[in-house]
Amino acid sequence: MNNDSSSRIFAALRQWVAGAAPGARLPSTRQLVAEYQASPVTVQKALQALAAQGLIESRPGVGTFVRAVRTARPSDYGWQTGALRSPASPLPPSSSTMRNVPGDAIWFHSGYPDRDLLPERLVRAALARAARGDAALSRPPAAGMPEPAAVVRPGAGIGNPGGDYPANAERRDRAAGKPERAQLHLPGPGGRRAAAADRIAVVLGCHPCGGPDGVRLVPVPAGPDGPDPADVDRAFAETGARAFYVQPNYSNPTGAQWAPGRGDEILDVARRHGAFLVEDDWAHDFGITSDPVPLATRDDSGQVVYIRSLTKSVSTAIRIAAVIVRGPARERILGHRAAESMYVSGLLQAAALDVVTQPGWQTHLRSLRHQLRSRRDLLATSIRQHVPEAHLDNLPRGGLNLWLRLPDTTDLPRLVRDCADAGVIIAAGTEWFPAEPAGAFIRLNYSGPNPGAYPEGARIIGEALAANGR
Amino acid sequence: MNNDSSSRIFAALRQWVAGAAPGARLPSTRQLVAEYQASPVTVQKALQALAAQGLIESRPGVGTFVRAVRTARPSDYGWQTGALRSPASPLPPSSSTMRNVPGDAIWFHSGYPDRDLLPERLVRAALARAARGDAALSRPPAAGMPEPAAVVRPGAGIGNPGGDYPANAERRDRAAGKPERAQLHLPGPGGRRAAAADRIAVVLGCHPCGGPDGVRLVPVPAGPDGPDPADVDRAFAETGARAFYVQPNYSNPTGAQWAPGRGDEILDVARRHGAFLVEDDWAHDFGITSDPVPLATRDDSGQVVYIRSLTKSVSTAIRIAAVIVRGPARERILGHRAAESMYVSGLLQAAALDVVTQPGWQTHLRSLRHQLRSRRDLLATSIRQHVPEAHLDNLPRGGLNLWLRLPDTTDLPRLVRDCADAGVIIAAGTEWFPAEPAGAFIRLNYSGPNPGAYPEGARIIGEALAANGR
Repeated sequence: MNNDSSSRIFAALRQWVAGAAPGARLPSTRQLVAEYQASPVTVQKALQALAAQGLIESRPGVGTFVRAVRTARPSDYGWQTGALRSPASPLPPSSSTMRNVPGDAIWFHSGYPDRDLLPERLVRAALARAARGDAALSRPPAAGMPEPAAVVRPGAGIGNPGGDYPANAERRDRAAGKPERAQLHLPGPGGRRAAAADRIAVVLGCHPCGGPDGVRLVPVPAGPDGPDPADVDRAFAETGARAFYVQPNYSNPTGAQWAPGRGDEILDVARRHGAFLVEDDWAHDFGITSDPVPLATRDDSGQVVYIRSLTKSVSTAIRIAAVIVRGPARERILGHRAAESMYVSGLLQAAALDVVTQPGWQTHLRSLRHQLRSRRDLLATSIRQHVPEAHLDNLPRGGLNLWLRLPDTTDLPRLVRDCADAGVIIAAGTEWFPAEPAGAFIRLNYSGPNPGAYPEGARIIGEALAANGR
Repeated sequence: MNNDSSSRIFAALRQWVAGAAPGARLPSTRQLVAEYQASPVTVQKALQALAAQGLIESRPGVGTFVRAVRTARPSDYGWQTGALRSPASPLPPSSSTMRNVPGDAIWFHSGYPDRDLLPERLVRAALARAARGDAALSRPPAAGMPEPAAVVRPGAGIGNPGGDYPANAERRDRAAGKPERAQLHLPGPGGRRAAAADRIAVVLGCHPCGGPDGVRLVPVPAGPDGPDPADVDRAFAETGARAFYVQPNYSNPTGAQWAPGRGDEILDVARRHGAFLVEDDWAHDFGITSDPVPLATRDDSGQVVYIRSLTKSVSTAIRIAAVIVRGPARERILGHRAAESMYVSGLLQAAALDVVTQPGWQTHLRSLRHQLRSRRDLLATSIRQHVPEAHLDNLPRGGLNLWLRLPDTTDLPRLVRDCADAGVIIAAGTEWFPAEPAGAFIRLNYSGPNPGAYPEGARIIGEALAANGR
């Protein structure tokens, strides 16, 4: 097709064909010429393009027809089973947090906050600015964009409650005279690659998708104050693990926040074993009655690989996270990252930086804190009223989830199913435990749509639980 | 900080501290109160926030100071070397195509077209629309977005020159009554994961970054008409490889396009060996005197894993590609993809689809074709005039690169260095060969900035080559 008129006819006919039955006859060229007020050559070009796409076929002397089905025999892809062999490691089932459900259901399963909780105005403005700027058409450095000078400063606490964002590609440590650098990139691969720094990871608060290829996960128990340093020490000694994946703030499972001082103890243990701590600060922007202070702020020896994603707090469309890591590990991660996908869209990086450096971001975070508090408290009250059998010992000081421990005899899959049948979507806690769950937990996310339905949702969960034992 | 006034003072002081020497004394609270016309409480809040970031320190009774360096001893990250161990596979050196060079140099090395060749207006408009739409704040399905109904139709040729884009998440094969699905996602991981369908890949036209972890690459020779089916047959038989990575159109290295009929022959060979063909249609939008017809259009048995990235032709900021794959391999790839990074930004997906479904996209592609032709021809003419020793047998029928074979005695690293010293950046062809290069090749990209400098660039290459033998 070499002209717009032909394109126009092509598009119109394609739409017509889409709605037509196989074998239907197209109008004649003469009719099309009249209808579209175009030359026969132009019409022919459009028809040829449709034929080239296999949408129509021409039977000389008869006419042009919507192409009939090619064969009645289904394709046999069985040979692929041999070629693919077994997966190198079992593929994790897809996470329930990614499930889309009917619009009228009550959602407690999502891992992503509802749009009401996102800084919509800031996000749209940042994206619109990015669309007009250089980032829309250029390629950023592979290690991430240099930060605006004021965003991160040497010696500054990273991810402090004041809201500074560690988005820098190059941080000069004036004291050491050495580069202290971080990168901006996609969260998924980032976190998982970081954890793959060695072949073995000790895991607490498992990532819902399981471990990266070739990483053996070794569970470590944790109480409401975090893991016991003696347990961590034993796990390192027994396994020779070189990395410990942790969520010190509002961890999954259980929602716990490490006790003051616990971070330093665990850092000491890791240092003694020459191991990394991979800190997933997933809920950095979701403090409610406490401020999540990253472990990384107390690390001077490059022990902590710090990950902070903006996917949940800025927008699910802005798939950007920061990784802060110092020393040779940084080069290793950058190398893997470059081999995986060269670089990350500069447009998303620019928009992310824009959002978190606006004064409005601080205002948003303050309002978000109030909203999360109301939602959490409403859900907790509703649960206490309607699901008295549930243990809700730790009202989380931040994050997005209530973790309920149900009676040990609970048939969780049945409970999840019964709730879904009644229009309430809940997630069994099972998928967040790296091994057997420590009890019959469910995780209720209080950042989904329609918090007004929480009492009704709790009532339905209570009924389903009561029926569960019968 | 709980109010904007305090934030404002914080930001101003942070900037001041950034320019101040360690140990410098800050103005007194009284002075700051006067300067910023704020209450003492507000000023104190700002100072506390700066102290919390480690930027300043307060010495009671003395004053407040820019924090001195903490230690003179550089951090010792040596322990990491033990924890990281050797990489599981050697990390590939970073590609020369990603290098940023001084603005006044003549670029022949880039892998990405200059902004002049991108559909700037369409990209900015699409991103602006996406910023206003749902995609800015919502999460797309993990397998990619459902395509607008008219974009891809059952039976339609994929990636046909008419410009249809296989961006569909679900294509119903009416004939088979079976889903025939593709996904939209990031190009880097997509291609590499697809190739990882088995532990061994036969590679022709190597991806510049080398193979994915755990994949052994086996080179197969290829002439100007593509690989000899007998060579491919032998490689499959000898290695038990289950995948063959190919660029049938304008391959790297050499720029060759497979002869008519060659694709069917290679498909037959792959079918006999129960192997995949991973088709990287990297230059689909860059046909000059031919139209790249994908191999995938002739595949009914799910043999071809088809990859088409829009990074080069739409915008480097829109990191989106389509993968078309049928049968169990699709589930395997989706599983890996979900485990890697859950999903791909819906904003980028929406913008990509928007661009390639605009009527202006066809207009742009036509204009691009003319521009690429002029650039290619100007560069070829310049090379023939100034670098007579170079063999330029195959003027490429599409793509972005001229492949020059230089005399076998050429010291390529020296040539690259000498050219760079004279302000001309070229890439040795070496990095695109999966094994030893078949000759002393250089790759000259004719889509970089400032094509008017091609004659001058060619002259400098000619001089450097003449000096190379001495």
